[in-house]
Amino acid sequence: MIDREQQAPQLPKLPTSAIETEEGLQANTQSWFEYPVKAQPHHTDYAGIVWHGTYLTWMEEARVEYLRSIGIEFADLVAMGCDLPVVELSLRYHLPIRLGVSAIVKVRLVESIGVRISWDYEIQSYDRQEIFLTGKVILVGIDREKGKIMRQLPSKVQEALVKHTTA
Amino acid sequence: MIDREQQAPQLPKLPTSAIETEEGLQANTQSWFEYPVKAQPHHTDYAGIVWHGTYLTWMEEARVEYLRSIGIEFADLVAMGCDLPVVELSLRYHLPIRLGVSAIVKVRLVESIGVRISWDYEIQSYDRQEIFLTGKVILVGIDREKGKIMRQLPSKVQEALVKHTTA
Amino acid sequence: MIDREQQAPQLPKLPTSAIETEEGLQANTQSWFEYPVKAQPHHTDYAGIVWHGTYLTWMEEARVEYLRSIGIEFADLVAMGCDLPVVELSLRYHLPIRLGVSAIVKVRLVESIGVRISWDYEIQSYDRQEIFLTGKVILVGIDREKGKIMRQLPSKVQEALVKHTTA
Amino acid sequence: MIDREQQAPQLPKLPTSAIETEEGLQANTQSWFEYPVKAQPHHTDYAGIVWHGTYLTWMEEARVEYLRSIGIEFADLVAMGCDLPVVELSLRYHLPIRLGVSAIVKVRLVESIGVRISWDYEIQSYDRQEIFLTGKVILVGIDREKGKIMRQLPSKVQEALVKHTTA
Repeated sequence: MIDREQQAPQLPKLPTSAIETEEGLQANTQSWFEYPVKAQPHHTDYAGIVWHGTYLTWMEEARVEYLRSIGIEFADLVAMGCDLPVVELSLRYHLPIRLGVSAIVKVRLVESIGVRISWDYEIQSYDRQEIFLTGKVILVGIDREKGKIMRQLPSKVQEALVKHTTA
Repeated sequence: MIDREQQAPQLPKLPTSAIETEEGLQANTQSWFEYPVKAQPHHTDYAGIVWHGTYLTWMEEARVEYLRSIGIEFADLVAMGCDLPVVELSLRYHLPIRLGVSAIVKVRLVESIGVRISWDYEIQSYDRQEIFLTGKVILVGIDREKGKIMRQLPSKVQEALVKHTTA
Repeated sequence: MIDREQQAPQLPKLPTSAIETEEGLQANTQSWFEYPVKAQPHHTDYAGIVWHGTYLTWMEEARVEYLRSIGIEFADLVAMGCDLPVVELSLRYHLPIRLGVSAIVKVRLVESIGVRISWDYEIQSYDRQEIFLTGKVILVGIDREKGKIMRQLPSKVQEALVKHTTA
Repeated sequence: MIDREQQAPQLPKLPTSAIETEEGLQANTQSWFEYPVKAQPHHTDYAGIVWHGTYLTWMEEARVEYLRSIGIEFADLVAMGCDLPVVELSLRYHLPIRLGVSAIVKVRLVESIGVRISWDYEIQSYDRQEIFLTGKVILVGIDREKGKIMRQLPSKVQEALVKHTTA
C-alpha cells in the first residue's frame, strides 16, 4: 500500500556523547529476535486488515519474549518493583496485513543508556519479501513504589542487556 | 513521570516545497478539537495506569469525531470506497493516566498535502495543568477497491479540510 | 441478523431462598441506566461490524458509570482494597452494529445477594426499535489484599446498592 | 478465587429432537483441541490479572486454529462469503490468571445442528491442576452478501465438522 523504501521514522537523537560513557551500549545489529504472529479476526478492523493499534500488542509480546530469552522475566521485574513503560514510540505502516496472514515481528535491542532502553522493530512476511511495519520504541526504568524514573536499572537487568548488546 | 518539557517527537519532514503548492495547506494553530475520555478498567494494565496502546483508540475516536464536526462522516467515506489508514505515528508519553481519571484528547489538523493528512495530538488533564501525551499521526487516502493510494481525496473531503485548515 | 425474540440466555439460578434473606434485594425493574456508545473503527472487525468482544468494554463502562451515578467511584473502591471482578457472563447477540452507528447500553442492577451483584443488559438502537444484544453479568466482591471473596461488601457500597434496588 | 466446582453456565437447550435429524451431530467428548496462551502486559488490567474480556480473544484464536487443523481456513471462508459470528456466549471465571502466567485454552466442538455450531471451552493451567475459565460459545453461519443466516453451511465446512464430531 505504502512505499516501503521510505526512510524509517526518526525519534529525537540521544546525545551521541552519551553513547561513549560507561553506560552507553551499542547493539550488535545482527541480533534480531523473531516472534511469529497471525492476524486473527479480533486483530482486524472494518477494512479486513490488522487495525493500526494491534501492532502494539505484538510488539510488546515480542519484547517480553526477547527479554525472557536473555533471562529477564518481565513479571518478575514488576514483582520486584521495577516497571519499564514505553515513553516514546514511532511507527511507519508500509503494507497492510490481511485476515489470516502470518508474519514475523523482529525486534532488536538498539541501546541501553542509563535507564533508557531503545528498540528497533520490523514486521515482515514469512517469506521475508515484504515489510509491513518499521518502528522504534523507547522504554524507561521506573521505580514502581516511588513512581519515579530509576537512577539505574536493576543490576541483573543491566547485566543481561549489556551482555546482549555488546556481542 | 517523564519530563513533559522535552521536545515533541519528530517524524520525517515532508518536503517544504510541497507546502507551497496549491494543495499545500497550513492549519490554524488555534483550532484544537477536544474529545473527553476516561480511564476505565479495560483501558488499564497491571500497573493501574492506561496501557500505552489504549491511547490509539482515543486518538482515533477524537479524529473521527473531529471529521464529523466538519461534515465528514467516516463510515460514509468508507462506504464510498475511500479509506484513511494511519501510515505514520509518533507518540511521546509524558505522564501516566490512572484508573478513573478523565482527560481531554486534543487533536488538530496540521496540514493536508495531496492525499496525506497530518494531525497533532495532546492529551491533557481536565484542569489543563498536565500533559499526558503528545503525538503526531499521518493518514493517507486509499482507494478501497484498487487497494492503492488515491490520486486525490474525494472532493467533499478535500473541501472540508481546506475550509478548516485555512481559517 | 438473529431473531431477537428468542429467550434471553439463562445463567444458573441462584437459590430462591437466598432472595428472601435480609441480604436479598430485588431490583426495581424500571431503573435502567443508559450509556451511549458509538461504533468506532477500532471496535469493528473484518466484517465491518462491532467485534463480539468489544461489547464487554461498553458493558463495563456502563456499569462503572452507573455505580458513579449512585455514589460509588470504582477507582476509589479499588484504592480501598475492594475489587468487583466479573465471575459470570452470558450474552446473546441479536443484531450486528455497523461502523459509525450509535447505540444505547442499558444496564440494570438486578440483585445484590451477599457479595454477588447481578446485572441485566440490553444494547438498543437510538430509536429503541432494535435490540442488538442482551446479557447478564455477575460480579463478586474480592478483598484485594487477601485475594479472597469478601464476607460482605464495604458498607458504603452495600447501602448504595440497597437504596437503588429497592426503590 | 471462585469455587471452580460450581456447575457450568447453561445456555438455553436446543430442542433435543433436532439432534436426531440428519444434520444433528454429537461430538466425541475426548476431542479437545489445545491452544497455548500467555498473559502479556496488554492482557492485564489494574488488578494485575487478565482482564475479563481478553479471554474472548484467546477463545477466538483457539477456535480459528482448531478449524484450521481440520482443514477450514477461516480467512478463506470469509473470502467465500460465509461468516461465522458468535450469537451466544456464556462464561464462568473460576480463577484469575496473573501477568506472565501461561495457560492452555481447550476448545471442543460440541455439535453442529443446521447452521449452528456449539463449542465448549476450558482454560487450564499448564500443569492441569487449575481451571481458570469454563465457557460455551455458539456460532451461526451467515451469508455475508445477503446478511442473513444461511440455509446450510458450505458443504466443505459441513463435511469437515461431521468428520470431526462423529469420530
